Amino acid sequence: MPPRIHVGPEPERLFTEAVEAAGAVVAAEPAEAEAIVWLTGEPAGLVSVLHPGVRWVQLSSAGVEQWLADGAIDADRRWTSAAGAYGETVADHALALALAGRRRLHECARADSWSRELEGRPLFGCTVAVVGAGAIGRALIRLLEPWGCRIVAVTRSGRDVEGAAVSLPASKLDEVWPQADVVVVAAPATDATRHLVGAPELARFRSDAWLVNVARGTLVDTEALADALAAGRLAGAALDVTDPEPLPDGHPLWREPRALITPHVANTDDIRRRTLADFTRENIRRYAAGEELRGLIDPARGY
Amino acid sequence: MPPRIHVGPEPERLFTEAVEAAGAVVAAEPAEAEAIVWLTGEPAGLVSVLHPGVRWVQLSSAGVEQWLADGAIDADRRWTSAAGAYGETVADHALALALAGRRRLHECARADSWSRELEGRPLFGCTVAVVGAGAIGRALIRLLEPWGCRIVAVTRSGRDVEGAAVSLPASKLDEVWPQADVVVVAAPATDATRHLVGAPELARFRSDAWLVNVARGTLVDTEALADALAAGRLAGAALDVTDPEPLPDGHPLWREPRALITPHVANTDDIRRRTLADFTRENIRRYAAGEELRGLIDPARGY
Repeated sequence: MPPRIHVGPEPERLFTEAVEAAGAVVAAEPAEAEAIVWLTGEPAGLVSVLHPGVRWVQLSSAGVEQWLADGAIDADRRWTSAAGAYGETVADHALALALAGRRRLHECARADSWSRELEGRPLFGCTVAVVGAGAIGRALIRLLEPWGCRIVAVTRSGRDVEGAAVSLPASKLDEVWPQADVVVVAAPATDATRHLVGAPELARFRSDAWLVNVARGTLVDTEALADALAAGRLAGAALDVTDPEPLPDGHPLWREPRALITPHVANTDDIRRRTLADFTRENIRRYAAGEELRGLIDPARGY
Repeated sequence: MPPRIHVGPEPERLFTEAVEAAGAVVAAEPAEAEAIVWLTGEPAGLVSVLHPGVRWVQLSSAGVEQWLADGAIDADRRWTSAAGAYGETVADHALALALAGRRRLHECARADSWSRELEGRPLFGCTVAVVGAGAIGRALIRLLEPWGCRIVAVTRSGRDVEGAAVSLPASKLDEVWPQADVVVVAAPATDATRHLVGAPELARFRSDAWLVNVARGTLVDTEALADALAAGRLAGAALDVTDPEPLPDGHPLWREPRALITPHVANTDDIRRRTLADFTRENIRRYAAGEELRGLIDPARGY
């Protein structure tokens, strides 16, 4: 019997097609379903339709802090996030930001006159610190491969990361900052990673270094960063995420010449939907086949 | 006997060291030299010190139009440009520009308010036309490899280009424009490539396409491009080179929202010197060993 899967809160076609493409059956009502694909970020709606027969819930975002904070994620069934699905897309944005920073494209974009003062530098031979080696970090390391950069990968445990010259645990981050030409923050937002980059850390950055944040705004102490940029302690910061977010009008970072802000667009809605549909189809196939699911959430770990 | 090589017009240390590192001897005077490394772009100075004993001249730029136009390059000896030396560096800039365009970083850099309207798109799965498969084009194709882009490579002859899904001759460029998400112009400036991209060509671009020029400004008809951008015929243009160059203050492209101009900085002076010194050292080694030189100029071909 193929599994019966509900797509909610609305039965979006891209996803009902993914259910069928995976060999499963679309359940029109949650009550008939043994698994649910939930396409909004609001826990309340899903909780109201959950029942003991639901063995698995596929959520649509890569980060699930809100779901964990609300206690929506229980131990009665498996829950999967979209962690991994958006890795390549976000890595593409991270590398676009890193290259733009090195090449001073943010300054060029603001210029209205020719000036050879705006010389940048290529990425060849750089040391790139990749903080967090989840789907984004791993995809970024793959994209960087042809540049021959020296990759310093940082994970909680310090486990060996493929493609990295050096793999370090988060406890050794102090050694990382002074080495890196580019620091890319791609770690999950947890209590342990809040303000991972604050004033003491920024003080150890190289003066020609770039900070790129494509993870969550809370990983960086925004005020400390604004101060460090204003003081020229580092070459620049390219941020797709901020804290607070959205970054309010009039915030000093909007007029900071060393900052490049993108409005949380590493993963666009269009791409997200297509990527999520592919990810969901593959997870349904795995579910039906009894294989390990991608993006399994571990509430104890916090992602 | 190691070859005696003169470095002029000034005996810059980075290059006299390269001569020695290659196992040759620095000739203080041109008259004592059988080969000359010439570090400025002015033909006149070199011509005044040339003598029949000089078997080889290494020039410092990748493009040598001016040298050819002045008739400085004769058939009495071998002449080499730095063609190839700057390929990777310029390819890095080209990819930075392509990613910036796709990701709308030029618009983000100019924004002073959070707007999700500024969503861009990743490069994954794009068709990238690489027009010119010299050192820059080939290096760019290598950098693009992890993105899994479909590469359409265009050369004069249409020879098979490594890493390209399709290799076409310049005579088939008309087929290229409508396919490409990104067109990167990386061809030499010759009579045949002048205004390679003009009004008729731009009319065939996709409306969501980006044009990137890292070659020479004359390959693009600047007025036609400014018109096409203003009319929204393509998504944008990122230009490291312009015609005229420098782009004059007040030129429409400076205030064109779809344009990103960098002031001919794909290869910076610092990087150029280091790269050229490495290139020169290798060519001296080849010269001494009787091997084929890199960057050999063919006056008939025009580069």
